[in-house]
Amino acid sequence: MFTTVLIANRGEIAVRVARTCRELGIRTVAAYSTADRDSAVVRLADRAVHLGPPAAKSSYLNIPALIEAALSTGAEAVHPGYGFLSEDPDFAEVCEANGLTFIGPPAHVMERLGDKAMARRLMAEAGLPVLPGSTGVVTGPAEARQLADRVGYPVILKAVAGGGGRGMAVVRDGDQLAPAFQDTRAHARAVFGDDRLYLERYVDGARHIEVQVLCDRHGNAVHLGERDCSVQRRHQKLIEESPAPNLPRALRDRICAAAVQGALAAGYVGAGTFEFVLAPDGGFFLMEVNCRLQVEHPVTEMVTGIDLVREQLRIAAGEPLGYGQQDVVVRGSAVEARVNAEDPERDFVPTPGLLSEFTPPGGPFVRVDTHAYPGWVVGPDYDSLLAKTIAWAPDREQAVARLDRALAEFRIDGPGVRTTAGYLRRTLADPRYRAGRHTTGLVAAMAEETAV
Amino acid sequence: MFTTVLIANRGEIAVRVARTCRELGIRTVAAYSTADRDSAVVRLADRAVHLGPPAAKSSYLNIPALIEAALSTGAEAVHPGYGFLSEDPDFAEVCEANGLTFIGPPAHVMERLGDKAMARRLMAEAGLPVLPGSTGVVTGPAEARQLADRVGYPVILKAVAGGGGRGMAVVRDGDQLAPAFQDTRAHARAVFGDDRLYLERYVDGARHIEVQVLCDRHGNAVHLGERDCSVQRRHQKLIEESPAPNLPRALRDRICAAAVQGALAAGYVGAGTFEFVLAPDGGFFLMEVNCRLQVEHPVTEMVTGIDLVREQLRIAAGEPLGYGQQDVVVRGSAVEARVNAEDPERDFVPTPGLLSEFTPPGGPFVRVDTHAYPGWVVGPDYDSLLAKTIAWAPDREQAVARLDRALAEFRIDGPGVRTTAGYLRRTLADPRYRAGRHTTGLVAAMAEETAV
Repeated sequence: MFTTVLIANRGEIAVRVARTCRELGIRTVAAYSTADRDSAVVRLADRAVHLGPPAAKSSYLNIPALIEAALSTGAEAVHPGYGFLSEDPDFAEVCEANGLTFIGPPAHVMERLGDKAMARRLMAEAGLPVLPGSTGVVTGPAEARQLADRVGYPVILKAVAGGGGRGMAVVRDGDQLAPAFQDTRAHARAVFGDDRLYLERYVDGARHIEVQVLCDRHGNAVHLGERDCSVQRRHQKLIEESPAPNLPRALRDRICAAAVQGALAAGYVGAGTFEFVLAPDGGFFLMEVNCRLQVEHPVTEMVTGIDLVREQLRIAAGEPLGYGQQDVVVRGSAVEARVNAEDPERDFVPTPGLLSEFTPPGGPFVRVDTHAYPGWVVGPDYDSLLAKTIAWAPDREQAVARLDRALAEFRIDGPGVRTTAGYLRRTLADPRYRAGRHTTGLVAAMAEETAV
Repeated sequence: MFTTVLIANRGEIAVRVARTCRELGIRTVAAYSTADRDSAVVRLADRAVHLGPPAAKSSYLNIPALIEAALSTGAEAVHPGYGFLSEDPDFAEVCEANGLTFIGPPAHVMERLGDKAMARRLMAEAGLPVLPGSTGVVTGPAEARQLADRVGYPVILKAVAGGGGRGMAVVRDGDQLAPAFQDTRAHARAVFGDDRLYLERYVDGARHIEVQVLCDRHGNAVHLGERDCSVQRRHQKLIEESPAPNLPRALRDRICAAAVQGALAAGYVGAGTFEFVLAPDGGFFLMEVNCRLQVEHPVTEMVTGIDLVREQLRIAAGEPLGYGQQDVVVRGSAVEARVNAEDPERDFVPTPGLLSEFTPPGGPFVRVDTHAYPGWVVGPDYDSLLAKTIAWAPDREQAVARLDRALAEFRIDGPGVRTTAGYLRRTLADPRYRAGRHTTGLVAAMAEETAV
């Protein structure tokens, strides 16, 4: 096992990684931007190295500074967390070239799966169902129109380099296609530095079901069950759970088996997530593969008892999984809500500021993953995620009641700071959500109903 | 189910009870002393009623004030927590006489089991192994000497009304018996208002093993496995875990079966704990029965997935358990450490004071049960328990590493405030503890080794 790991990330996920490293007796190095000099991970880590100013390109996307931080502290491996460089094949390659183990899949696997259009083709060849659409990149609005007319509306345009719910647009009729194409392309260029788009059929009334897989370097692969992440606002997940409610056992098994099949076909190594669209008729289609830990990984940990960061570290160190599919047992139900520093009454605008008060919930079967503490200043530089709150219970109904209890317990205050905790509680209370009969349209439907 | 429950307690256990009530949709009434007017449970509860000044007899032992608080707020049931009135048959009777459900065993059961000498006799009759000793109360030093000479040294003198590790003395030779008897009697009179003592053989090199039972009002009884609470300082538990390490399966099953047998014989109702001495030769002997929730109940919750307060409420409301012994499945290993506001370098003297900083640990498989928050003043009036910290993992070694990680994360500060977190970490690191080969003598042995 490694003796020292550099954490190339910030916020709650940096804390998350530091915790498991500590449990395994691995020394941690926190790499931080100026804005994060008083951050929780800097306090927790064995060492901390300053990267640069707050702007991501000067800090958490600054590959030379990260490599230098790792080499100067004797780190043998780099954990990239999620976002930032976590799915960047170049970073993985530079790490390896410097004798550092990148904790994630090999660069060439990330490269193929990270290009959403290529991944779509590769996975279709591996026998996974994909939605009808382009076989690769769509060159322009005219080709998009031609394709869309053939596969039928609605369609969705997606950036090849997209992720985190950004760089996509649903188009419901042909006349909207050209302007949507231009907008999405411009957005993709600005956000990802890559303006290539692809197109596929969009399924109304769908659910978002994703499967967690673990693959070691010795050809062993297991899935850790599925997550339902259908509660989304503008393609951003708000509430996630495992197992998925109202998912027939046979269908669940087929989706999970498809993910393992895809992982093996891709030569996947590490922890990964296969995201599927589940149509109302029970058809399911691969959307994309995420070559990193997901924000919502704790719900899988809570029901399986498996520490995913520990597995990532073990796999990266070359250890075999040491267990098979039959050893992975899902117990009970876990639900996560992302409490963000945003104002739900002002279109979820981020509300940075000093946390004069921050007391998280606790007690039985409640987990909080946060980097916040009293006195922490939520800065304007990064995302607004404040505290992931996860509740476990023997069944979904109790888990939801427990999560609601936990969200009600939060005491967060500070000048100008607002949070989404109350909004999340209202979502949990929605009868469609309570019944587990919601789709990815739930949040938009709730917004319309409130507006009326 | 009840619509409103009065919580007749304070501190972390009051918060614990309020949490489950909230999850079940039960309104809570916090009953508080002047010292606790800004306490966490007062913030969490739906209503709060002032009982009186800090002194326990004016507040948490003030039966008329508690009954009035319940009646005036429409509470239908009273949860007594642990300590204070939780094992007081008179309180249970007065509750029932006022139409309030006491959440605990019936008064007559508590009466018989609460009198340790009577419980010993009763349980011996039910076929449970008890240590050789007095059949009832020992009248004076002379009778004690006679008995001790017969059963053999060492012996232990215990207050009939004792509990929480107080009111007991180990005597290793006959000459010490008379002074020990006088001291213990005086102590018992002062602390419990009852100076009756009994005597039994004391086992050196023993472990403390206890079994959690649940019994409904319909004759159904199950055990929820055992806990090892051998890490004790002057009979006060510091670290508890479930399952017990290095306990052969057959022996474990016999101890657990004995507890269920005792519970059924006593007509027990609710959540209860049967405490056993486990001798080095594998012999086990009932010490006492605790007619309440234990401080260490979370480790049982973490391995079984069962919320014990929920079960207490359901049983008190007359619901049947609804599951049998085969449905209770122990998964993994859980360890709890009690972080107290005490100074380990000054003989564990309590260190009350303002918490200018209080940031508990979090993350995967860590649970903190606390009533503390930044700005809370740890008062001198009650016990010094600050935060129970519990870690779960698939096996004991990982659970201990995780608990150590969690304890290291605590950030607690304030003028004059010290905590036992560092001391607990040193105990977890002891090779005897790590190997699960420790006895109740561990803490004393560690103290001697440090002193040398």
